[in-house]
Amino acid sequence: MNCRQHNLIFPPTILHTMAETQKAVRWHPPSFDIRVESVPIPKIEHPDDVIVKVTLAALCGSDLHVYRGHAGVEKVHTCGHEFIGEVVSLGTSYGAGKSQGRPALYSSLKVGHKVVSPFTSNCGECHVCRLGYTGRCPKGALFGSAVLEGGQAQYVRVPTGGGTLFNLSDPSTWSSSLPKDVREKALGQISDSSLLMLADILPTGVFAATQALNHPKVAPVLTGRPWPLCFSPVVEQGNEVSLTAEDKVLTVAIVGLGPVGICAAVSLLDALSTRKVPFKIVAIDLVEGRREKMKAVYGAIGESGKAGGEFAVCGIDEAKEKVKEWTDGIGTTAVLEVVGNTSALTLAYDLVRAFGAIVSVGVHGEPQLPLTGRQCYNKNVSFDFGRCPARAMFPLAFDLLVKRQDVFGGVGEKASLIDKIADFSQAAELYEEFDKSRIGKVIFDPWK
Amino acid sequence: MNCRQHNLIFPPTILHTMAETQKAVRWHPPSFDIRVESVPIPKIEHPDDVIVKVTLAALCGSDLHVYRGHAGVEKVHTCGHEFIGEVVSLGTSYGAGKSQGRPALYSSLKVGHKVVSPFTSNCGECHVCRLGYTGRCPKGALFGSAVLEGGQAQYVRVPTGGGTLFNLSDPSTWSSSLPKDVREKALGQISDSSLLMLADILPTGVFAATQALNHPKVAPVLTGRPWPLCFSPVVEQGNEVSLTAEDKVLTVAIVGLGPVGICAAVSLLDALSTRKVPFKIVAIDLVEGRREKMKAVYGAIGESGKAGGEFAVCGIDEAKEKVKEWTDGIGTTAVLEVVGNTSALTLAYDLVRAFGAIVSVGVHGEPQLPLTGRQCYNKNVSFDFGRCPARAMFPLAFDLLVKRQDVFGGVGEKASLIDKIADFSQAAELYEEFDKSRIGKVIFDPWK
Repeated sequence: MNCRQHNLIFPPTILHTMAETQKAVRWHPPSFDIRVESVPIPKIEHPDDVIVKVTLAALCGSDLHVYRGHAGVEKVHTCGHEFIGEVVSLGTSYGAGKSQGRPALYSSLKVGHKVVSPFTSNCGECHVCRLGYTGRCPKGALFGSAVLEGGQAQYVRVPTGGGTLFNLSDPSTWSSSLPKDVREKALGQISDSSLLMLADILPTGVFAATQALNHPKVAPVLTGRPWPLCFSPVVEQGNEVSLTAEDKVLTVAIVGLGPVGICAAVSLLDALSTRKVPFKIVAIDLVEGRREKMKAVYGAIGESGKAGGEFAVCGIDEAKEKVKEWTDGIGTTAVLEVVGNTSALTLAYDLVRAFGAIVSVGVHGEPQLPLTGRQCYNKNVSFDFGRCPARAMFPLAFDLLVKRQDVFGGVGEKASLIDKIADFSQAAELYEEFDKSRIGKVIFDPWK
Repeated sequence: MNCRQHNLIFPPTILHTMAETQKAVRWHPPSFDIRVESVPIPKIEHPDDVIVKVTLAALCGSDLHVYRGHAGVEKVHTCGHEFIGEVVSLGTSYGAGKSQGRPALYSSLKVGHKVVSPFTSNCGECHVCRLGYTGRCPKGALFGSAVLEGGQAQYVRVPTGGGTLFNLSDPSTWSSSLPKDVREKALGQISDSSLLMLADILPTGVFAATQALNHPKVAPVLTGRPWPLCFSPVVEQGNEVSLTAEDKVLTVAIVGLGPVGICAAVSLLDALSTRKVPFKIVAIDLVEGRREKMKAVYGAIGESGKAGGEFAVCGIDEAKEKVKEWTDGIGTTAVLEVVGNTSALTLAYDLVRAFGAIVSVGVHGEPQLPLTGRQCYNKNVSFDFGRCPARAMFPLAFDLLVKRQDVFGGVGEKASLIDKIADFSQAAELYEEFDKSRIGKVIFDPWK
């Protein structure tokens, strides 16, 4: 396994003889200013810290908020919140038997282990983390922000690493819907560039789909029982007429087909085909290149992964027509909003049916919500906002990654979510290309 | 049973000899102008219509939007959307065997049956109604609005009555969690003023509580498993530490203690005590009289109906302190917003925890939502907005009404939600008193 090999070629003692400085991609205020600089290699600052040698680090759409100067940040800092790598140093909290009442990784994580990090750190121990809401741990921070140096570097310090990291070398630390042998084989075979999707885009896509599928307002479609009897184990009848086959077709609009939107689509298709739920999904983006990528990904999914439904990819006007036609003007049961601006929210509102659910995983900014209270009341609309608790989503996202290597496995192919693996010397140029939607997802190899 | 007695003293043939006009409480533009007038008795206009002789009709907080001239209404109309009465005339759609593929009431509803109506009509047959979302039936309308005459009259026309009405004389048309004998006995014993709560306030309160209890973000507290593993039948472990007993205490804030807020509190307490979920609930209102009513209602609930929790009733500042103390500054898992203005939404946002759910059943108006996209993203907040599908909620609301006659049974008592039964001559005066929060819920007897 990779980690073991690495353990041999990169023993912890090397740390002491390493150079004191490293290369890092740094953001400078006020905007559009990316520089590759030599900065100190991070050190353990707290007993719970882990230092990770970064193998690959990705560029994410939400990095652009800071890049464009829209995030109110003034501090120069290392960019990037998606990274995978190997543990090279552990704080004193780590060691056999040290996890009593703490996350298991404090006992089991070792130098040389391959790890992927969610895009935010989290303690894994507080009330918020215990509930699974790791993305909002009060002790947590976003990598690549003013308060925590990012992963587009050769080394990164991970605070509360025992709560934060996913240990890809030790599958005993999470469970899976996959058979043991399938999982272990997958861990040895899946490329780092594919595993890196676990840092953000894949769990965020799964988060969007999971929220929609578990929303109470979607329950009548999935259970075939009317609201609120779909929740009642005892009350079965209320003068209603039965649901028709058509009522049990789940209609969903996906607004925004960047990498997260595509992951959300794949997650949704996987869940619906597994549960044999018939569906009509419309996937929407303004940018033709993104629509083409979505079509290619859909095309790459095997028949069993998309059975029982219709899937359309189109622009806004065509999507509105499609939803009108599919739902007789009523609207879709759910909308996944994967953009993060007011136009996307307004479109989501226009597309959703009365008593529908809008799941928004886009990163929203300063503008006020573009809807009146009356609009929300009159359409009985529901919203789920916010950041993915990526650490908590990991087990489900990992299973999907393994199942859907047909679309998550490649680099630079037509159906791949990753356009390119580049070195840091191209960083400034690639940020600009990415900002202008002239390139899709880019990964940096800090050692090239 | 009442309906049978009524059938004897009020046979349908009397209809033909009835006067042509009736008394009705009418709203005149632009605002604050309520008059009791003589208007024509409504007639069957469509085969699905039912004419109901109104026994009692209530004044509701949401009637005040029109009263105050805030609803953009210009048309003089009969007020009121809460009424109970007896069927006096049926359209030609009704009769034995006429419900093939239609709601059962088209076959079974008869002149003389006692019925209560939800505050909106609904067909009971379209896609939206089949899903249980009867409050937004595209064919439906709000009683007491510019498009449908209200129930504060001696007679009212109910469109699509077979889909709309609850037949209190024929319990075979809905099922129940109660034993058959308990339910039948209850139907014979519960007063009309108590049954009238089924029209709006009780189902809307149950709707608020039901949405909160079934919200995915509340699931970890109720299941004891972290998000998203609480939804997964197969994946059981993700490096998390176990939930503590304290994590499984459901914290809820109820903003607004009018009749609906109090019904929501009773519904929530009933559900939590039945499921043995420990709780901490804070019930909040600016008006002392409402807080006193909430305290009296809580006091009237038997110990078994509120076991296992803490329940505080207070003003805004004290509530914020209480939530801080209870949750270590994190916030409550859910907030029920039962007011319908921007201050209430802002307070709900302030009180809810990150990854919490705000359930808003208040009737909101023109102002834009008082939150930015960033605030919603940063707190991972969820919202459920909108009108109760009262017809669909009826079976659950009826069961609660029967179980909690200790608080829903009286009139004018300290713990009763109904302050007074009045005649129409007092209508103008009582609207004014109600508008100024000088009196609580008022019911009119149109025949006094």
